[in-house]
Amino acid sequence: MAKKIYIGVIGSAKCDKNTAYTAERVGELLAKEGAVIICGGYGGVMEACSRGASLAGGMVIGVLSGEDRKGENPYLSASIVTGMGEARNAVIVRSSHAVIAVSGGYGTLSEIALALKMQRPVVGINTWRIDQGDGNKHIIYAESPEEAVKIALDMGRKSSEFVENDF
Amino acid sequence: MAKKIYIGVIGSAKCDKNTAYTAERVGELLAKEGAVIICGGYGGVMEACSRGASLAGGMVIGVLSGEDRKGENPYLSASIVTGMGEARNAVIVRSSHAVIAVSGGYGTLSEIALALKMQRPVVGINTWRIDQGDGNKHIIYAESPEEAVKIALDMGRKSSEFVENDF
Amino acid sequence: MAKKIYIGVIGSAKCDKNTAYTAERVGELLAKEGAVIICGGYGGVMEACSRGASLAGGMVIGVLSGEDRKGENPYLSASIVTGMGEARNAVIVRSSHAVIAVSGGYGTLSEIALALKMQRPVVGINTWRIDQGDGNKHIIYAESPEEAVKIALDMGRKSSEFVENDF
Amino acid sequence: MAKKIYIGVIGSAKCDKNTAYTAERVGELLAKEGAVIICGGYGGVMEACSRGASLAGGMVIGVLSGEDRKGENPYLSASIVTGMGEARNAVIVRSSHAVIAVSGGYGTLSEIALALKMQRPVVGINTWRIDQGDGNKHIIYAESPEEAVKIALDMGRKSSEFVENDF
Repeated sequence: MAKKIYIGVIGSAKCDKNTAYTAERVGELLAKEGAVIICGGYGGVMEACSRGASLAGGMVIGVLSGEDRKGENPYLSASIVTGMGEARNAVIVRSSHAVIAVSGGYGTLSEIALALKMQRPVVGINTWRIDQGDGNKHIIYAESPEEAVKIALDMGRKSSEFVENDF
Repeated sequence: MAKKIYIGVIGSAKCDKNTAYTAERVGELLAKEGAVIICGGYGGVMEACSRGASLAGGMVIGVLSGEDRKGENPYLSASIVTGMGEARNAVIVRSSHAVIAVSGGYGTLSEIALALKMQRPVVGINTWRIDQGDGNKHIIYAESPEEAVKIALDMGRKSSEFVENDF
Repeated sequence: MAKKIYIGVIGSAKCDKNTAYTAERVGELLAKEGAVIICGGYGGVMEACSRGASLAGGMVIGVLSGEDRKGENPYLSASIVTGMGEARNAVIVRSSHAVIAVSGGYGTLSEIALALKMQRPVVGINTWRIDQGDGNKHIIYAESPEEAVKIALDMGRKSSEFVENDF
Repeated sequence: MAKKIYIGVIGSAKCDKNTAYTAERVGELLAKEGAVIICGGYGGVMEACSRGASLAGGMVIGVLSGEDRKGENPYLSASIVTGMGEARNAVIVRSSHAVIAVSGGYGTLSEIALALKMQRPVVGINTWRIDQGDGNKHIIYAESPEEAVKIALDMGRKSSEFVENDF
């Protein structure tokens, strides 16, 4: 049995058409590469990426912040109901070997930061710029879904999290 | 698309052969009925039930307590890494429309109690006896995997959690 | 600086007068012994024990399940807002060197079970009876607040959690 | 009884002398104003701010990420052991009416983002710069501990979280 790679896809619950197209394509490409997608399970970027993965026959798990499944998108293979509010962002990140941020607001920024803290590679498309005043970038910016998926899979497969654990 | 029903299967990380057989059969029967199984993702009852479900072509999600995937069983469709220790027990229960307890120790008892608190039906096979001194039983005891699965699915489908949410 | 001992006091958000009296006395006695009390922060047993501790000049921390401080009782020295629902029960237990259960419902039962799982001594006054069919009791039953507080402090001070950590 | 105001102070577990001095002064000033301080409970900025508050007779609660109290600083009035890893960052923020970030790394950035998501005012001293490519700042930058404390208290007391809840 091949080892599973898990990629987090993060972004806002509301987004414009271009962002949705990008997220859907990210989901589709990850599914075609056999990655399991972890996302927040709601609308916007989460729904678009779930839709892309689902139509390509992939597996997408939604890790919901709410107390029940209200508002989850219809493209999830399965969902987990944490009932923990924003604390669930740490669960999305911890479950992923690498994350791809597509645009996004404050919630996405918190996930980017948690991923960096937990030493998960972060690939960003049109997302936050962050620095500590020294100009360092921290996020690996990609110009297209194809580039983002390639980098995330390459780096995720090299992560100690992926290499050291059995499945 | 049919509405998904989620059933939690809870029990110890170590168990004897009879208990494992029971758990494996519970997993198999749930899978054949199309239920998504939520479990703790490790060995013992969790592994046996995952194995039963997996061999029957079903979907099993492991909600791990640890900080990484070390020790997860090889029969999971996907796993979530909470990094939250025993606090993840609440996530397993909240994600389930009903739970089936197969034998089990203190961790299982905490999940039974959380399920009762969250108004999830609890079906038990050879598991804890609990009372407040008034003799009330709280848990619905079943004698076989067949009976447990039938009760859990019937009651889970009637739960407000199942009826009111869209997917 | 003397090492602090933390005792969890658990029980229902609603309770009768006798139970409230017991809980208030538990709080008072713990405060007089210099223990920090950890509780769920709301009404009933939690409020009574907070009141007892507060009037005796002790420290009580409420670990709230909700998303804000609505419903917290007025006797807390400080409160923590987890926003995590029932998953916060694990935080109350993990923060305590021993727990005292005063009566209580399903939430209390989940905390008792988590405490036993995390190897915290559990002292009970008029609370749940639990067994695995072998008659073993697991909980140390006390007949009075005085007895419960004495046992909890004695056992809490011998716990590895207390002995091994610095403060 | 006056309503309590809770201010989160966030920053790294290791820091240089100047940053420590700033954090200690922030703690001292908050204590003198009667605020309850919520912090991560470990070293660096957390310890310096706890020390400042403690010496001024204030109350500081440490919300620890670990499974026990190992590594907590000696200036805490009390600590909570979450056992939840980085997911505890959401608890620190949710417990605070406003947060003050003193310098800080990825963990601090995640707390800044969570605070903005939860609509808590964020005051920063020599901390992260964040933007979505539109130049908007999100964080209110302060030049001194005095300025930071004044802004955090003023804005915290106007927050709906403070105004609407009873204690």
